[in-house]
Amino acid sequence: VNSAEQGAKRASAHVDSQRLNQHLMALAAIGGRSDGGVSRETLTELDLEARRYVCKLARELGCSVFQDDCGNLFFRREGSEDLPPVLTGSHIDTQPVGGKYDGAYGVIAGLEVLAALNDAGISTRAPIEVVSWTNEEGSRFAPGAMGSSAFVDPTRMPDYLESTDRDGIRLGDALQRAFAAFPYLPRRPLGQPLTACIELHIEQGPVLERAQSALGVVTSIQSVRWFSVCCSGRMAHAGTTPMDERCDAMSAALEIAAALQTLAGQWRNQGLRMTLGRWQVIPNSVNTIPGRVEFSIDARCVDEQLLEHFEAGLRQLLEDYQWDGQLEVERFFARGTTHFPPQMLELTRRACEQTCQALELKAPLALTSGAFHDAMYLAEQCPTAMIFVPSRHGISHNAKEYTEPGQLYAGARALAYAVTELALR
Amino acid sequence: VNSAEQGAKRASAHVDSQRLNQHLMALAAIGGRSDGGVSRETLTELDLEARRYVCKLARELGCSVFQDDCGNLFFRREGSEDLPPVLTGSHIDTQPVGGKYDGAYGVIAGLEVLAALNDAGISTRAPIEVVSWTNEEGSRFAPGAMGSSAFVDPTRMPDYLESTDRDGIRLGDALQRAFAAFPYLPRRPLGQPLTACIELHIEQGPVLERAQSALGVVTSIQSVRWFSVCCSGRMAHAGTTPMDERCDAMSAALEIAAALQTLAGQWRNQGLRMTLGRWQVIPNSVNTIPGRVEFSIDARCVDEQLLEHFEAGLRQLLEDYQWDGQLEVERFFARGTTHFPPQMLELTRRACEQTCQALELKAPLALTSGAFHDAMYLAEQCPTAMIFVPSRHGISHNAKEYTEPGQLYAGARALAYAVTELALR
Repeated sequence: VNSAEQGAKRASAHVDSQRLNQHLMALAAIGGRSDGGVSRETLTELDLEARRYVCKLARELGCSVFQDDCGNLFFRREGSEDLPPVLTGSHIDTQPVGGKYDGAYGVIAGLEVLAALNDAGISTRAPIEVVSWTNEEGSRFAPGAMGSSAFVDPTRMPDYLESTDRDGIRLGDALQRAFAAFPYLPRRPLGQPLTACIELHIEQGPVLERAQSALGVVTSIQSVRWFSVCCSGRMAHAGTTPMDERCDAMSAALEIAAALQTLAGQWRNQGLRMTLGRWQVIPNSVNTIPGRVEFSIDARCVDEQLLEHFEAGLRQLLEDYQWDGQLEVERFFARGTTHFPPQMLELTRRACEQTCQALELKAPLALTSGAFHDAMYLAEQCPTAMIFVPSRHGISHNAKEYTEPGQLYAGARALAYAVTELALR
Repeated sequence: VNSAEQGAKRASAHVDSQRLNQHLMALAAIGGRSDGGVSRETLTELDLEARRYVCKLARELGCSVFQDDCGNLFFRREGSEDLPPVLTGSHIDTQPVGGKYDGAYGVIAGLEVLAALNDAGISTRAPIEVVSWTNEEGSRFAPGAMGSSAFVDPTRMPDYLESTDRDGIRLGDALQRAFAAFPYLPRRPLGQPLTACIELHIEQGPVLERAQSALGVVTSIQSVRWFSVCCSGRMAHAGTTPMDERCDAMSAALEIAAALQTLAGQWRNQGLRMTLGRWQVIPNSVNTIPGRVEFSIDARCVDEQLLEHFEAGLRQLLEDYQWDGQLEVERFFARGTTHFPPQMLELTRRACEQTCQALELKAPLALTSGAFHDAMYLAEQCPTAMIFVPSRHGISHNAKEYTEPGQLYAGARALAYAVTELALR
């Protein structure tokens, strides 16, 4: 273990901040926008160009390159023994208007770790692979985290292949075009065995910035449940219908929404987050009493039990609600809390602490991830962990997304430490 | 006056229920739907076909036919003296999905009055004109009541000509096509002098049905104010943003809407009606905290003063509301209460009472119109009144719109009474 730790420190010290930044900015230029953002949705021509760029970077580092049946790209640095690889990486697709860092940082930092190992002349026992997952964002083809979830459960692929984008293009057809663009890339099956996985990502929230910490040890990814509440009343003329003859779907929706905020509010200090983000009003006309209002509830918490209480409260509330119209509730997505295993948390905590000491930064912070990440699915497959760097003002999925170069450097150093120690053990 | 009353009674007795119904159903077949509704928006091919049909009915009654610069159609039965005409009528355009009665009933009943006068062999002093106003509904081109408002104020026309439908077609161009379809119809300027105006219409609300009255004397059209409230917060990730770091535009909108319902509720028994009908949420995504929520307020009351209090309360409420985001309110439409003049109310009350007595129906009810009508603008120009017949379940702007034939007959008889008395005086 001692020599593994020493190797990890050496690899970490060989991370090159300038090179990291240069590669990250070169990648951001592919689909780059005049407002500083990046528009590079999955499997578009720009995404294929970005894939070409990261493949080139990897080959220059001496890696072999593979892709699997979901278009996930793997850059492999061989180890001295025939062991399952240590995996790191993230994704290079963006939201319709995204930033330079979300996903891209994890892939470029992974390649920087390989470069640092080369520069330090370190040969590892286990091979190391850097992955670039297909369609993490889910904005073009639903659902998100497609590549990583297909990797851990290939039975999802037949459904995924039929997913269509807003122009009616099937994922299956978009994938075939991507395969045709890389005809000589060796294919391998989904779901290879892995030694461990570490994903480095921007926080996309304000916690690290507020704490003035450059590095975050992600202990868990909070659970989420998505509901749709539909209130069906009676559409009627706003002018001619007396107040006591109405069956106003919006009035009901407003009362229910207010009650939901009270319900969720009691667990606010225990970390329950509730968002009523999507509203569909029919007929949505100034002078017509709404006949139908449907709204979404996004409820998240690290404490799964608390979400369970919230759902029970929601259902009770709707059952107790008295009016002439109809109410329906549907839970259309749910995913439990991901707890990263203690030995991986111990490692990432140590990697972050060593980095902060070396760079004279404030100690790392343990925190929860509010967003989904590919690591959520990888955790089903192998010991997994995540490291976060700050997002300025907590902004992400936005052209204004920003992380300071010094923080990006610190993150890559911590990643190099953790990945190298795992591969040397 | 005595001979005018006697003539009015005779004309009323000559109204033919079967003929009225037959013409109404024949008109409803133009744009008729399998669900019983009618889709015949203004100045469409179907509307032009409907115009051809009512022109044919009018010519068969011996009327001369005119149109004005807004495409309003006038069917004229000459009087014995050179006086301004007594006007009746309504509109034959419908909502995208409307019923058989809204508007069409007033035009067909107007023509039935002329037929009854013919059958009774009555010659009137003043000419009588039946009008079919262009674009009362306002669903294809905004605003509604276009033809009647242009008639009373022709300076509105230049703006109206530039109004475009959802396909970008200008009203001016749609009108030119309509004029081309009727090349031999004499044109006359907007805004002719009138002796008086009476509009017969379905109630579109539940008041007459609830009171079991077949006829309603409309005393006024309630005033209306339309507002738009815009809450601008900060769009952010629903998963990563802690509750106390949010500037959630939907939370603000929900609180303001609840406060508005309390505000409006205190005047509920005095007849204030409030509807929050149109909601625009940006970006309207399940997992994004809304950055912007805009909603409309439709507030109506017969008591103008009360609407004034409501608006003051609304503005105070928004001024007092404390949050990190921004609030804006805009009043984008306002129209004061239309009070029909006492001598016209006395006439329509008498016309309705005589009809109810003759048909052994329950006495007529005095009521307020919750909806706009062309008569609202005509009241600026000449002594005006309205008569209502019931709408089953208060339903209108809907394929289910329905009024019993006996009620339609009673309405046409009351109209014949009032129009004849005005034209004989």
